[in-house]
Amino acid sequence: MKRAIYLKKNDWKDALRMFRDEFLSIFPLNSEIVPVRDSLNRITAKDVTARFSSPNYSAAAMDGIAVKAEITFGASSSSPKRFSIGKDADFIDTGRPIKEGFDAVVKIEDVIEIDDSTVEVRSPVPPGKDVRFKGEDFKIGETIVPRNHHIRPIDIGAMLSCGLLEVDVRRKPKVSIIPTGSEIVEPKDELQLGDIVDCNSYIAEGMIGSWGGLVQRQPIVRNDKEKIEQAIRRAVSCSDIVIVIAGSSAGSEDYTVSVIKKMGKVFIHGVDLMPGKPVILAQVEEKPVIGLPGYPLSAFVILDIYVRELIADALGVTPQKRKKLKAILKENIPSKLGMHEIVRVKLLEKDGKVFAFPLKRGAGVLSSLVKADGFLHIPKDEEGVNEGAEVEVELIKKGTDAMGSDPCV
Amino acid sequence: MKRAIYLKKNDWKDALRMFRDEFLSIFPLNSEIVPVRDSLNRITAKDVTARFSSPNYSAAAMDGIAVKAEITFGASSSSPKRFSIGKDADFIDTGRPIKEGFDAVVKIEDVIEIDDSTVEVRSPVPPGKDVRFKGEDFKIGETIVPRNHHIRPIDIGAMLSCGLLEVDVRRKPKVSIIPTGSEIVEPKDELQLGDIVDCNSYIAEGMIGSWGGLVQRQPIVRNDKEKIEQAIRRAVSCSDIVIVIAGSSAGSEDYTVSVIKKMGKVFIHGVDLMPGKPVILAQVEEKPVIGLPGYPLSAFVILDIYVRELIADALGVTPQKRKKLKAILKENIPSKLGMHEIVRVKLLEKDGKVFAFPLKRGAGVLSSLVKADGFLHIPKDEEGVNEGAEVEVELIKKGTDAMGSDPCV
Repeated sequence: MKRAIYLKKNDWKDALRMFRDEFLSIFPLNSEIVPVRDSLNRITAKDVTARFSSPNYSAAAMDGIAVKAEITFGASSSSPKRFSIGKDADFIDTGRPIKEGFDAVVKIEDVIEIDDSTVEVRSPVPPGKDVRFKGEDFKIGETIVPRNHHIRPIDIGAMLSCGLLEVDVRRKPKVSIIPTGSEIVEPKDELQLGDIVDCNSYIAEGMIGSWGGLVQRQPIVRNDKEKIEQAIRRAVSCSDIVIVIAGSSAGSEDYTVSVIKKMGKVFIHGVDLMPGKPVILAQVEEKPVIGLPGYPLSAFVILDIYVRELIADALGVTPQKRKKLKAILKENIPSKLGMHEIVRVKLLEKDGKVFAFPLKRGAGVLSSLVKADGFLHIPKDEEGVNEGAEVEVELIKKGTDAMGSDPCV
Repeated sequence: MKRAIYLKKNDWKDALRMFRDEFLSIFPLNSEIVPVRDSLNRITAKDVTARFSSPNYSAAAMDGIAVKAEITFGASSSSPKRFSIGKDADFIDTGRPIKEGFDAVVKIEDVIEIDDSTVEVRSPVPPGKDVRFKGEDFKIGETIVPRNHHIRPIDIGAMLSCGLLEVDVRRKPKVSIIPTGSEIVEPKDELQLGDIVDCNSYIAEGMIGSWGGLVQRQPIVRNDKEKIEQAIRRAVSCSDIVIVIAGSSAGSEDYTVSVIKKMGKVFIHGVDLMPGKPVILAQVEEKPVIGLPGYPLSAFVILDIYVRELIADALGVTPQKRKKLKAILKENIPSKLGMHEIVRVKLLEKDGKVFAFPLKRGAGVLSSLVKADGFLHIPKDEEGVNEGAEVEVELIKKGTDAMGSDPCV
């Protein structure tokens, strides 16, 4: 019985840097043209400039009469001025074009209608009063949004207002996910002894989708070297990034690393992260291939750290950093020297202080992640953190509502 | 020529409260059952509980040998213990079921293979060592996520792991958007004098979609009372919320309010918000109908304040509050007494201090919103804010990348 029992503890940050550097020649991906209306949450590949000015003509900003401002100069209650409609002045509604020669609007509240063709004004207006001038919002050729910008609803509005119907955006990286394992089954409501439901690929699908990737989930592959190789070969040919779930450790049936070694280069097998240690960072036919550990928490951490950065590189952007918060730790946490540990914590506020309670630490305990408010990082040169210590917690929780995902414009 | 020139300055907060109260009987909406795999970003309508335990059997947490822990007691380098494979111990891979009677795993690194059927162990393991017990993650019947929870990728993973294939979520509120105005045209790349591109309905579509609503954009309706009435009637019959864009002011062609008055009840016409003043809050056939002002900034503010809350009520959730930040104002901002003004500001950090620069204030200046980092609120009882004052800025900007939308789990 042959068993590989060795897994390197590469520094997880060095591994990330090194891995990203390997793909500098293929990322960011090229761009594609999409309709502006369908460009929400895409990343601009170029500066986007106005095709025409917005507004595209000078217009009334109030309902009233359009005039040349100077004819109102000197008007007062004691010496009102009267204007002839169609000659000195035009009735005008908000948003309508101002005739050549007119440069101000007297708002309707300040206009006294004398008869069908005559109005009276009792105070002057300065030039430009209540007029929206052509190009006031965007001038022709002006940059609306820069390159590498995440397109929001208001950006779509601004682009459409400036005559843009299409926009150059980064192609979405195609990410193939290959679940492997003879014990892995599709989600179902009756399990046999030994069945493990494939939840990792669905978690990965949701995370990667929200980061801007296009997930192509592949069928589950049994523990069979040839089948795994075929699946990776197929995935590499039709995607930008390939993720193989499980088989990344060093057990007797963990074939992933030997299969990938045969097909390409394995840069890293194992990092000093807990959870997340048995990761594979590799390359097959110039494409990045990542072997995710099978435990959900380990898989999550590797997705969150390595895959997230890789997708950001593919899109030409920088992932946003999570907010951090100081809290007082409520329990001792011993930690293994030489391993960077990520502990899930629940936060509780009391008397203006925030307390952090560590949740279950097993790499298989998905509930700890579902319940967590944040992550506490224990660096590898520390043997743990004592109760009462002030710690920094990386906040991972959104609001508990559909709004939570988008508190911003 | 008949002109209504009156618009009330109702308190905007009172108007919001009153309007929401009108629909307490119809919101939150009923629920619907969707596949768990398609439930990302939906809101749970009930507590979701585990159909079976996860893991569903006790399993090895390491590769090694499964044993009854007590047979290892007393093992040491000087007095190793030998076990017979298939009888006292079984080779086992991570994740595989542990046989009845065994309660611990000796990891492979600590197992010395003597011959094909004999292994030696030189240190004891306690009961439970490296075993993942059935239900360790979730026990059958345990709550996975509570009611009114925004479903994230990890929640999908947890639900699938516990045997759930379907989940009860709130129905997405259907929101019909009716753009009106004879000058309004579909986005195009050549404009005639007087044409205004409909950007508001696309901005609304993006915002409402991200809040969990299902937008049904209707064709543009010209300024024609009958056509507007028909469009509203049709929209009300097939949606939960109706938004009419423009015609909400008091100009000669602003028909929206009179049409709605004829069809149902107008609760509010005009609030003390700037931008956003000429809003209509109404009801037709029990459904909320909102008249948005035509200026993009005014429309944005009304969407952000009134429509956002209404959609949250429809979904049974509370909108997440935006983060706030203290900044030093770099310019005087005079403001109209009696109006609550929302000023767009750009933030700049220098020497550890954050400075706020007000952007253009016109209600038509979409660029001010595209460029803004945040909103500065000037309450109606203040005549402005002076340069140098410490102000609170509501942060509206996400990161400038696809990651920005989802820095969380």
